[in-house]
Order: sequence, then C-alpha cells, then structure tokens
Amino acid sequence: MEENNKLKENERIDNLEINNFKIIQDKSGFCFGIDSVLLSDFAKNIKNNAKCVDLGTGTGILSILLCAKTNLAKIYGIEVQQDVADMANRSRILNNLQERFEIFNMNIKDILNSSNVYADILKKNSFDCVITNPPYKKINTGKINDNEKKLISRHEITANLNDFLEVAKYLLKDKGSLYMVHRPERMVEILKCMKENKIEPKEIQFVYPQVDKEPNLILIKGIKNGKEFLKIKKPLFIYDKNGNYTQEILKIYGRENK
Amino acid sequence: MEENNKLKENERIDNLEINNFKIIQDKSGFCFGIDSVLLSDFAKNIKNNAKCVDLGTGTGILSILLCAKTNLAKIYGIEVQQDVADMANRSRILNNLQERFEIFNMNIKDILNSSNVYADILKKNSFDCVITNPPYKKINTGKINDNEKKLISRHEITANLNDFLEVAKYLLKDKGSLYMVHRPERMVEILKCMKENKIEPKEIQFVYPQVDKEPNLILIKGIKNGKEFLKIKKPLFIYDKNGNYTQEILKIYGRENK
Repeated sequence: MEENNKLKENERIDNLEINNFKIIQDKSGFCFGIDSVLLSDFAKNIKNNAKCVDLGTGTGILSILLCAKTNLAKIYGIEVQQDVADMANRSRILNNLQERFEIFNMNIKDILNSSNVYADILKKNSFDCVITNPPYKKINTGKINDNEKKLISRHEITANLNDFLEVAKYLLKDKGSLYMVHRPERMVEILKCMKENKIEPKEIQFVYPQVDKEPNLILIKGIKNGKEFLKIKKPLFIYDKNGNYTQEILKIYGRENK
Repeated sequence: MEENNKLKENERIDNLEINNFKIIQDKSGFCFGIDSVLLSDFAKNIKNNAKCVDLGTGTGILSILLCAKTNLAKIYGIEVQQDVADMANRSRILNNLQERFEIFNMNIKDILNSSNVYADILKKNSFDCVITNPPYKKINTGKINDNEKKLISRHEITANLNDFLEVAKYLLKDKGSLYMVHRPERMVEILKCMKENKIEPKEIQFVYPQVDKEPNLILIKGIKNGKEFLKIKKPLFIYDKNGNYTQEILKIYGRENK
C-alpha cells in the first residue's frame, strides 16, 4: 500500500470513515478517542470560512475532523512534540489538506511571545475560532504514563489550563468562539478561568457513558466578551442499556441505522 | 375538619405523604414545587443532630421535608414576608415540629447585622448546614408576577444570589454544607459566587425533564473551605418517554412501585 510508505515503525493508519479521511497514529503513543469526535461534532456549526486554531493538535485528529465537517477556511494546529507534529503533518498530506490545515511545532505558550517564528500568522484578536482538547490532568496527579508522549498529551506538563485559555483569549477576535472538551471534575476551575480570560461560557453539554452513570466528559463553548447566559444542552449518552452505541453516537460517527 | 380552623381565606392544606406531614399554602401565592422535594432528597444525608438554617423558607416546605427525611436536631427557617412566615409557623404547629423547626420573620441580609433580634441564635460559624431554594430570577428579568408574594419568592427583590451565599458563609462552620437548588442558566454565576464566599462546589446534579431535554434545575452541594474537587452526579429525569414520573422520582415521592 502506497500510504504505508509514509509510516514509521510503530505507526498505523486509521480510517476516519468521514470523507474517507485517514489518520496516522503511533500505536504506543496517545491515540485519538471519542473526545475528539464529540468535540468536532459539538463545534460543527462554526461559520463558513472561519479562521481557526487547534491548540495542542496532537495527531491532528480534531483539525482533520473539522475540515471534514465544516467549511472552515483554515485551521492551524499547534503541537509541542516534534515527532507528533511530524505525524500530524503526514496525515495532513495524506488527506490532501495542505491548503486548509497547517501544523506549527511549538509550545502554545510561545504564541503570547510576539517574536515567535509564526507571529505574523498567529496574530492577536484575529481568529474566529479556537478549538482544543487539552491535557485533562494536573501535573503530579493521577496515574502517570511511562511513555513521555502520552504524558504530555494527558498531563499539564508543558502548558496548563490557564495557558490554554490565555492563548485562546489572545488569538480570538471579539465575539470569537472557543470550543473545548475536558473532564467534569474540573468544571469549576474551567469556568472560573474562562471568565478571568474574558471568555464567557455560553453552552455546555455533559457526556454520560450511560443513562444512569456520572458524566465523564464536558463539552464547552465560550464567546470572547460574550454576554452572561449559559445554555446547558440535553445530555449526550454514549451507550444504551445493552452496551451498544446510542443512535446519537452512531449518527455522530456517520453510522446511524437507516 | 379541625385543621381547617387554622386556615385563612385563600389557604389550603396539602398532604406531603411523608410522615403524614402537611403544609398550609396560599392558593393565590407561591405553592411549593418539585424543586423543594428534589432538594430535600439531595440533602437527605446531612448528619444526625445537625443544626441547620433554611434561607428563604417560604411556606416552610423544605424544612418540613428535611425534618421528615433526616435526623437533624434543629432547623431555623428565615422568611422576609410576614404573612408567609405566619403560614409557615402554622404548618410547623400543624406537624408538631415546634421542637425542631423555628421560623424567624426577617430579611436574610439582616443575619449579617450582629444587632439583629436573633443574633444570639444565628451566630457566625455555628451551623452544620444551610439549605436554600432562593429566588431564581434577577430583578427586572423574565415574566413579572402581579402578585407580590410570588414576586418576592421568584425574583431577587429583597436579597440576591450573593446575599444568600454571603449569609451561608457567615452561618456555616468550617466544613459545613450548603445545599441549593437553582436554574442551570445561572450556574456560572453561582459557582463563581460560591468560590468568592469560600464555599467550594463539591457535588452537582442536573435535573432533566426528560431524557432528551435540556435540564431545568441544578442541585448543588458546597462545603465551606472545602478542597477543590467536583463530582457531577448521574442525571435525574422527571418524566419517562410516556410522560409518567420515572421510578426515581416516584421513589423520592415515596410512591415507587413495589
């Protein structure tokens, strides 16, 4: 298979089953999960021709899904890990997204430094949308993965929640949108931090594994300088009573029963 | 009926179907809703012999339900409207709760004034639990009811959210619990205001009318000077697909199918 020529050892290509898009992932690293799929769906109404930034793009999954689901003009994926950024770049080429998706290998915090290499592109107050699936865990909490790639993707090693929101505030235009997925147990901190960075929480959806379980993900939309009013959306359930994907999840995956 | 002797014109007695407790309500005023029932259930694990305050007790429904569901030692209901406080007082006597439930007719804000009439009882840092079903709407928002009693019960006329939380902070012991029911659209403000008053949000439950609807109530537990960690509980649904109460709601009402 020609595509396999682009693979390094330990890598594999997964089919996203949307627009025939594919993604290269490191089998021993952090592979994309349902989080990215749900976030891309939650953000699917971003306006046509939007200029976007994906903070901590990882393998590029979120940006690739958004290119498939929306008419965004351009999305810049920022990734601190050089080999992960390289993998995202190869997925970008594999999917012929050179025009719409670009990868910058840098720490998101450097965006705030006006002398960074990409400063002429990553300009203050110039983006319609910032999207992010940041590391969920504070440094020194929870299970630590031995694998450094997973560690940086899951724990706030190179940037923390406030860094992500400070950078979002910097990049977004007035009334620009932030979309984020995170863990419910950090909601209080997330909302406080959004307010402090002038990004008003406007929409929240809780993702419950099943109808009688606690939520394990929270999807949040904020508007820079937005008016105070929060809408909590109807709940999203992953599995039905029999342990199968719900119709709603199948629909998001493009596999609903006809 | 002997009980009816205690009723004024426009009043009625409703049976709570818990411990055979009853409640006097003004037919043209604010009648208790499912909010109070759900909040009393959410708070049912308050510790034995707890000293509690019910801020804005109204008809006394929340305090009466808590006397039925818990082993609290004493609960003080604070109510600003004189005739409503009088009605709560008669419900208190009707249910023989004189020992455990007391009504103070005052504005909750006066609790902060150390020369108030009840200052020797409503002491700073001395309560295990504060519970409240405060007015949901900001002043000058939403539909305004002509009836002044409903107005004060529903809108922040005599005290606002921050007043309720400031008083809760004042009354609670270190690690004392606050229980509140409110509207989801005000969650961001509620959580911010709790943090500012040193009451850490610890547990939240969203109440959804049905499985595919947006939530219309939020139940919140906070701990004064508590450690940061939020647990969002499994969702609570009021009606099933056929429009009947769910088993969980029937159970809360003590009417579950055997």
